[in-house]
Parts: sequence; structure tokens; C-alpha cells
Amino acid sequence: MAKINLKNVCFVVVSLCLAANVSAELRVDPPNWWVGMANQELELLIHGDNVGRAQLEVGVADDTVQLVDIKPADSDNYLIVNLLIAPEAKEQTLELRFSGAVDYTLNYLLKARDPALGAGQGYDASDVIYLLTPDRFANGDSSNDRVEGMQEQVVDRSAPYGRHGGDLQGVREHLDYLQDLGVTQLWMNPVLENDQAEQSYHGYAITDHYRIDPRYGDLALMMTLANEARARGIQFIWDVIPNHSGSYHWWMQDLPFKDWVNYPDSRQRTNHRRESVQDPYSIASDRENFQSGWFVDAMPDLNQRNPHMARYLIQNTIWWIETLGLSGLRVDTYPYSDKAFMAQWNAALLAEYPNLNSVGEEWSLNPSIVAYWQDGKHNSDGYLGSSPAMMDFPLNDSLLKAVAESEAWNTGLTRVYQTLANDFVYANPNDLVIFPDNHDMSRVFSQVNESVSATKMALAMIATLRGIPQIFYGTEILMHNRGTESHGVIRSDFPGGWAGDAVNARTGAGLSEEQLEFQQWTRELLNWRRQQVAIHKGDFRHKAPFEGLYAYRRTYQSSTVLVLVNNLDVPRNVPRAEVSELTGDSNLWADALSNESIDFSKAVAVPPKSVLILQTP
Amino acid sequence: MAKINLKNVCFVVVSLCLAANVSAELRVDPPNWWVGMANQELELLIHGDNVGRAQLEVGVADDTVQLVDIKPADSDNYLIVNLLIAPEAKEQTLELRFSGAVDYTLNYLLKARDPALGAGQGYDASDVIYLLTPDRFANGDSSNDRVEGMQEQVVDRSAPYGRHGGDLQGVREHLDYLQDLGVTQLWMNPVLENDQAEQSYHGYAITDHYRIDPRYGDLALMMTLANEARARGIQFIWDVIPNHSGSYHWWMQDLPFKDWVNYPDSRQRTNHRRESVQDPYSIASDRENFQSGWFVDAMPDLNQRNPHMARYLIQNTIWWIETLGLSGLRVDTYPYSDKAFMAQWNAALLAEYPNLNSVGEEWSLNPSIVAYWQDGKHNSDGYLGSSPAMMDFPLNDSLLKAVAESEAWNTGLTRVYQTLANDFVYANPNDLVIFPDNHDMSRVFSQVNESVSATKMALAMIATLRGIPQIFYGTEILMHNRGTESHGVIRSDFPGGWAGDAVNARTGAGLSEEQLEFQQWTRELLNWRRQQVAIHKGDFRHKAPFEGLYAYRRTYQSSTVLVLVNNLDVPRNVPRAEVSELTGDSNLWADALSNESIDFSKAVAVPPKSVLILQTP
Repeated sequence: MAKINLKNVCFVVVSLCLAANVSAELRVDPPNWWVGMANQELELLIHGDNVGRAQLEVGVADDTVQLVDIKPADSDNYLIVNLLIAPEAKEQTLELRFSGAVDYTLNYLLKARDPALGAGQGYDASDVIYLLTPDRFANGDSSNDRVEGMQEQVVDRSAPYGRHGGDLQGVREHLDYLQDLGVTQLWMNPVLENDQAEQSYHGYAITDHYRIDPRYGDLALMMTLANEARARGIQFIWDVIPNHSGSYHWWMQDLPFKDWVNYPDSRQRTNHRRESVQDPYSIASDRENFQSGWFVDAMPDLNQRNPHMARYLIQNTIWWIETLGLSGLRVDTYPYSDKAFMAQWNAALLAEYPNLNSVGEEWSLNPSIVAYWQDGKHNSDGYLGSSPAMMDFPLNDSLLKAVAESEAWNTGLTRVYQTLANDFVYANPNDLVIFPDNHDMSRVFSQVNESVSATKMALAMIATLRGIPQIFYGTEILMHNRGTESHGVIRSDFPGGWAGDAVNARTGAGLSEEQLEFQQWTRELLNWRRQQVAIHKGDFRHKAPFEGLYAYRRTYQSSTVLVLVNNLDVPRNVPRAEVSELTGDSNLWADALSNESIDFSKAVAVPPKSVLILQTP
Repeated sequence: MAKINLKNVCFVVVSLCLAANVSAELRVDPPNWWVGMANQELELLIHGDNVGRAQLEVGVADDTVQLVDIKPADSDNYLIVNLLIAPEAKEQTLELRFSGAVDYTLNYLLKARDPALGAGQGYDASDVIYLLTPDRFANGDSSNDRVEGMQEQVVDRSAPYGRHGGDLQGVREHLDYLQDLGVTQLWMNPVLENDQAEQSYHGYAITDHYRIDPRYGDLALMMTLANEARARGIQFIWDVIPNHSGSYHWWMQDLPFKDWVNYPDSRQRTNHRRESVQDPYSIASDRENFQSGWFVDAMPDLNQRNPHMARYLIQNTIWWIETLGLSGLRVDTYPYSDKAFMAQWNAALLAEYPNLNSVGEEWSLNPSIVAYWQDGKHNSDGYLGSSPAMMDFPLNDSLLKAVAESEAWNTGLTRVYQTLANDFVYANPNDLVIFPDNHDMSRVFSQVNESVSATKMALAMIATLRGIPQIFYGTEILMHNRGTESHGVIRSDFPGGWAGDAVNARTGAGLSEEQLEFQQWTRELLNWRRQQVAIHKGDFRHKAPFEGLYAYRRTYQSSTVLVLVNNLDVPRNVPRAEVSELTGDSNLWADALSNESIDFSKAVAVPPKSVLILQTP
């Protein structure tokens, strides 16, 4: 269809076909857009009975907005409309008038952008990310626990994979708590509608890309939450899933294109062979099956090679960034998406938000595979990595094993040392997100066999090593998943989030002494960290572990943080000479958390299984 | 010292100092050189009492040879002489006449090169390398078991770390056996003099870089051995140790320079932290300690940053290549040497022998660290890898674990698949040397718990995967190190190598049925492999392991080899459709070893724990 120039306040009529005139509810995605975006193009996906067979007139205020194209889809119930919005366009409402097969008029808003939201500001190593599972964090509004018309109607806190009632209002009520804890970025598991028949609580089976799940609240509440968080120095990282949706997604009953999802009929499962992407010897079927197979039966694999799907996903993400003023993204199942699309996706998002940060989930323990995807990596197969940040699963694995085991030549802290020494494979190791655990693995306290000291060691290192730290809700009160690996238990309710809870992590009521002490220690650690420019942007140097001691230093200008990790069951005396390349000549140090002064002219004793953080006073 | 031009048949006298005139035995390294080398420079290290204080005249035949420089060392007992040999120089004898402090005349031969030796021809994936420990392979000459004047006088075959009497004559007597077995390259653990007080049998503590250990034979015998092997299509790979020598090296009592070896007084041990080389965060002391520390107390670390040491090592290696017509090298403890030197070393050797192959030992299971050293790798720290080949320790580890364990998501054949899929980190994976075991680890048969089928699987894969295969002596008769990890036991005597042995691997006498069958199978496998251009230079493709089956294909022009590996304890039926991307449409195949025809129109049954090698008939 040729490009159509619209004149001022005129209507262009495009006759698509002749059909019976029926009335219809129309859905337009995205539901609004903005003027002043870097990308002047906008593609609308319009859905409604027979809309693909209707005539469409588009009314514009002036020639700063142009109708470029109208395209049918494979299904008669979709219409694709391409607009071009000139940089000088002002806020306005377009009128989309359908006639013929459909008789309907729709007002479409092009809003002015709100710079106060700071959309796409990014996050970095000066931040602390707190990950929470919204169904399991806090139930601030019991009226939305069960929502009429949704498939999952049972609310049962005793069912590990059922819905528990947590919501955005609950998060809102914890903002002070989180601010106090030292959190600056909130990553919630996805809060978009997951109207699945079962296990909808986790959020990764989206059924409507433009709707907050009503069991969590609504868009207005989400905007309020984002604003209130922002006022406390906390921004949101959006959990995005370009790879798949939920099997009950509204479009699954009527796909716009035959190739909108991969394997729509066979529902072929992915082989999970992530190595096939980089493998110089892979066969096409292994690669194709990995990227196009369904993650699980309940999650259709989206076909991002369909250019309209690609546009849909990119615009949807921009819509949420712009609407909520998100700082950045966490991208689910990163390598399972089409790799050319992921490069296109990142380029499009960064063109719009140059400071945006976005962390990809590539759950491989092979750093070369993780590194492959990061922006700045020029791979030997010619592929250019494009994701600004990646999740550091290799370090997670090393760190947890290290603190849970004894020291020997190839065990204990050497694992951490070796993983970091391997950073030469990354384009930018400072933009790796580092974490003791997340929603998909045993909680750190359980992984280290419920050793408080080992958990502290892990957290202290996460707070001081290179990278962007992320913790999972409840880590600060030693939440565990004793005796099970059930994801539903790993994502247990945060105590006190529900009315009548005997234990309340927010107020401290009912917490054990051990939990209270750990929570307070975490608070002090994270708040101390907020001020440490040496950790946020400092150089990193370490000394190979020696006799149970691992020492490293962060330095930025005149500011230095020295970390001494003792993984032995006995105190470890450290004469300054042993770490003199890290300390320089200074004997005058202070314990970072207690502020006690430390005289390094004598050997410093690091207590058993502990991390001593020193800084220049 | 200024450059000195010599005129035809003249003598230039350089007065170094005045001293008492004494007679002396002088040693010149290298003991001879050649005309017509690519590098026209030659540096002689001359050793003898007070030679550094003597006057030297050098007599040359014509002006194609020039004396460039004469330099003293830190010790009075050394003199360094630099010559320049013009491309047109003819074979000739130089006369080195010492006077003053030393009264001595020495004839120094510049020989013509012998192209018939094929020096530096290289080796590649068309070869099979056989590694043997000369003290333990065969004792062909009992008269040299104990050599008067050498430190280790006891010969005791029952002592795992003592001398057993194996020698070059013993190897010589096995050349027909090795040829018959399908071997094309012989790598012997070092055969240079190791006049150490104990554990001298392994060869890695060289005490004279220009002398065959007299317990193995002498230079003439080594030349004969090389010639006789060459006549059988077998070449030699020299085991070179640029990193260290033996503590009883002749120069240790009188070092030419104070910095000839690292830590000469403290004998500081290396920290073995190989990661420090690539580590972007390493501290200087960790790096320095790794590269400059002594490997063990009995092995002084050579300082290759001393330019005379660097020249000495390079010239010594060239001398052996040129003298024996070696195909290439195996470089011991590769990363422990100075990394700038190793680049210089490889450049110098390749300038002389462009087809030379040289495999570096970097015993890391991290492929990124192994890959760092290989020629063609442009590393992120700016270092250019320079070693043509590297030992593939990561594949060794994966392969042995794979065949010894059961199949599950992340165990068994998936390990092999994942390791190969990771080849994208290498500049040239086809030039990795692959092996089931070597002299430094448990024998493959022991590593797989004495499973004959698992050993066969390992060997069949080594013979058909990408890379250059290497096996360790005795693997073909299932030698083991039952119940111990002792290196002395791993390097046990090859049966029949000693007069009176009840078992003889060469003749088959006394071997069990199992051993005989395995030996014959190995012979057939390796001899079949010699003809397989698809394996030597073919493309490699594999399919991710699925239900216990790992399939891969080698293809070169019209020649195809298909390998089906079944790691289950039951037969695995493979319908052609399952591997159709590897087979193409052809149903007509042949079992590579039995030559039986295989009809792939029906499912092919791969027996339990076995490798089926098919080829296009």
C-alpha cells in the first residue's frame, strides 16, 4: 500500500473491502502514544470483529501526523496502521473512524511526554535492586484477591503454586521499609495480566501486554506506586518477556498472523540447548528448536521474526517505560528469543532511552555464553552483543559454593577469585547484575545450609564486588525453603504482608533475634554502600586466595574500600605485608560498618567465616 | 661494544682484560650451527674458567660470516659472542682462538642444512601422536641403565619414582610395532640429560640442554632413531621446557648472569595461579609469582626476560629441530613462562619453520584461558596468542567424565557436546591436541573405572572428533593405575620392553584376551583413520545429545563419516529421521571398521555404551 500524505484536518478513506456493517468493540495496541519520541514511527495493532474488512478514516489535527500505511493481517479481525509523527507534533487526539464492515469511531491520544518521570534513567553499580514476587510480598488490598471473571478463583496461601493475594498496594505500604533498607531499584516479577488457569502467580505467562493484573491493582495504582517510590529514591525495573506469553493470551484464540507464535499447533517444546546459539558446529534444527520451541506448554513462543510482532513487543516495552518512568528492564529468557530481534530490540530501546539499563537473563554458568550477549562484545561469528547488562549466574554459582564449603586448592574462595579473574571475556563486567539468589533458585540461606555467617559473607561480597547488586525479598530476614526446591516455597509470603500475620518483617514483630540482627546488619550494609563511590565506580583489584583469605580493594580517587574475606573456621590473622599491594603504606583504617578504627601496623584478625570491610577513614 | 666487520681470513682481537694464562676446557652452546637459516644472527654462550677474561680471535673463511659483538657476562667464566651469517654463506669451520686468561682454540662448525630431514614439517589432524615415557617404555640396551658419574645410580623397576632402564634403543625396537599401530608422530617425555639426585626418570629437570641423557643413549643413536622412524612415516615431536631446568643443571653452580634464573637464592615456589595472567584485576605480585616462581624445588625457573636466556632457549630448540628433523614441539608448562617471551619464541621458530606445529600445555579446564594462548587469538588485553596448537584439557575432562557416567540433562555426552559447542572461543579449534590421558593423570582405563567399553568410546571419539589425536603408551593394552594416583605407577613399564618380561605387548605374548582384542581394535581404528580425509580436514557438525545418543558428522568433499555414540546401558535405536540433518537422504552406509553395509532405511541399533562409526561406502 502506497504512502498516503494527510492534509490538515482531512480524512483519507481507504477501502479495504466491502462487508456488512456491524458494530464492534475495538482494541488498539498501544492504547496511546506520545509526541516527541526519537522514533517517529508508530504501528497500531487494531483488533475487533471484521475490522480487517472495514474502511478506515484517520483524522489528524495537522500534517505533523501522517498516515503511512494500512495493512490487513491474516485474520480479518486485525488491522495494522502505520503512522509517522513529526518531531514538532503537539499533543493531540486522532480520530480513527471505521465504516463498512465495522461502524466505530475511536479517539487515539498522542500525549506530551512527562520529563519528571525520568523514563529510562538507567541503573548502575551505585544501586541496590530488590526483587519481589508481587503475589507473595504483601496483600495491601484484600478486595482484589479474587477477581470475578478470571480463571484462577481460588486464593489459598497454603498452596505453594496458588494465588496468595499479594498486590501493588502491599508493595506501596512497604516503600518506607524498602527505602530504609537501602533499596534504590525495585524489580517485581511481571505484574501484567496472567489470566491463566493455574500457576498464574509467577507472572511469566502474560495474557494482556497492556493490563496490570487486576489482582495486583490497576494502571492508576501502578503509576501512583511508581511516583511514591520515586519520591523515596526508588525506581522500577520492568520484567519483560519478549520470548513468550501465556497460553490464554487474548490473541491466542484469533492470531493476527499465522506465524504470530511459533509452532501454534504442535506446541513443540524448546530443547533448552542454549549452547546451540554460539556453537560453530550446531545443526539448524537444534538452533531453531531452541529459539522457537515453547518454553513450557503454557507459554506460546512469540515469533519475533514477524515484523509486526517485533514492533508490538518493542512498542509495548517503550509504552511501560514512558508511562511509569521506569529506570530500566530485566529481560526474561534472553537467549530463547530470536537473536537478530534482540539486537533490534536493544537498538530501538537505546535509541529512545540512551541511558536505559537492561539486564538479560542468560542462565548459563559458562561466562563465554553470558558474555556473548553483552553490548560491546564483538563475537567471532560476527554477532554483536547488544544487552547493556547481563545477569551474572557464573558468579552466583561460585559465590554460593564458596561460602558453603571449606577452603582447598580448587574450592572455597578460589571459585570467586577464578570467576572474577575470568572477567576478561566480558565487554563490561561492571554492568553485570550480581546476586546471592533469585526467584528461580533455592534461597541463599538454604543454599548455604542455613549458616548465618555464610549468608552474611555472600551478602557482604555482593555489596562490595564489581557489578550491580540484587537481592531477593526476605533475604534480609533469612527466609528459607527448608527441605524443598519448590518454586512456590522459594517464593513464600513475606511475613507481615498479610493482615493477622504473627510475624512482621516490616515492624520486626515476631522475628527471631537472629533475623532481627541480620535485617539490621543488611540495612547498615546497604545504607553504608549507598555512599561508597569506591564501590559504585571504583577500580577493582584482588589478591589470589591464600590460606583461607581472599582480599580485594575498590578505589576511586582518594576513597578506598578494602575487603578481607576469611572462609576458615578459625580467625585469620592478616599482617599488612600480606596485602600491602592493596593497602599501600597506610596503617590507618576503619571498620566500615562499626566505624571502629583499625591499626594495620599489627596483624588484623578477621573472625572465622566472615567478611571484614575496611575503609580509609 | 661496537659492531666489528671481519675481513676475509682475518682475526679480530678483542681484549677483554688481562689475566693469567690458563688452559681450559671450553663449552660452546650451541655446539654447532647451520648456514642458510632464516635468522642470520647467532649467539654463542661460551663457558670455561676465566673465559670472560680472555682475549678472543675469530677466524672466518670469508666475509659471509661476521663477528658482531663479544660481551662479558656477570660471571668471569662466560663469554657471549654474536655472529652474523649471510644467506650466501657456505658450510665452514670457524676458528675461535682464546688467549690471555685462557689459551685454547676451538673449531666451530657451520653446517649445511639437510633438507632430507624435513625439519619443522609440522603435524596436524591427519596424524596420530603416541606419547611415551622413555625410561618406562622399553629397555633396548641394558648396558646404559646405570651410568658411571651420574647422580642416580640405583636402577630398580619396583621403585615407582626410580629409574627403570628404558632407552632409545628400546623405542627403536618398537618402531615396527608403532607403525603397525597407526602412529605417525612420537612424543617422548624429554630425553635430554636429567642428572638429578632423584626422580630423574620423568625428564622435566634438564641438566644439559645439548646432551641426550646417556641412560637413553647418545646423539648418534637419537639421530638414527629419528631416521628410522621417518622411514616408517613416523616423525618426532620434541618436548620442550622453556620455563625451567633441573636444579643440578651444569650452569647452576656458576650462573652466567645474576638474573639467569628467577629467585636463585630463595627458590620461591610459583603460586600456580594461572588465572593471574588473564585476570583484569590481578595484582603484580600474583602475576610475578606465578610466572617467576619455581615449579617445584628441583626446577629453577628460567628468566626469559634476560635476552641471552631467551636466545639460548630459542636456539636450543632450533638446534634440535634442525639436527633431528623434528616435525614440531610440545611445550611444557606453557603459561608459566614469560608471556612476552613466548610470543617471541613462537615468532622466532615460525620464522625459521613456517610449517612447524607446536602444542602448548595449559592445564586449565577453562577454555577461555586455553584459547588465550593460541595463534590468531586477539585478546581483550591486547595480547596476541602465538602458539599454533594447544592441549585440549577441557575436552579431556568432559570426555572422560562423559563416558564414565550416566546420561542426564547435564551429565554424560552433554559434557562433550557443550565443550565442543564452546569452540567459538578458539582461534583454531582444529589445531587443538585431543587426548584420553597423558603422563600426568590417571590412565583412561582407570579414569573410567576399568570399563573396556567406556575406554573404547573415549578412544573412538578421540579418533573422530575435531583436533589432533594423542594417545599415551599402553592405552592400547588397557594399562591402568589401579588404586593409586602415583605418577610413577601411571608411567609403568610397557610390558615386554624388558628382557624376561612375562607379558609382551609387542608380540602379544601373555596379554589377556581383552587386551589383545582392545589392541587389535585400536590398530584397526587408527589405521582406518589414516585414510580418512573427512576426519583430517572435514567439516564438523553435531546434534545435541538426545535420549542417550550423540551424533556427529565429518565431511570433506564427497567423503562423510557419521559417528553415533550411545552412552546408555541398553541399545539405542536411531531412525534416520532423527539424524537426517547429518545423514542427508542416503540410506546406504558402511560400518567403518567392519566394513559391513548398514541400511539406514530401518532404524540403526547402536549397542549399549558404544560408538558406531559409519561412512559413505
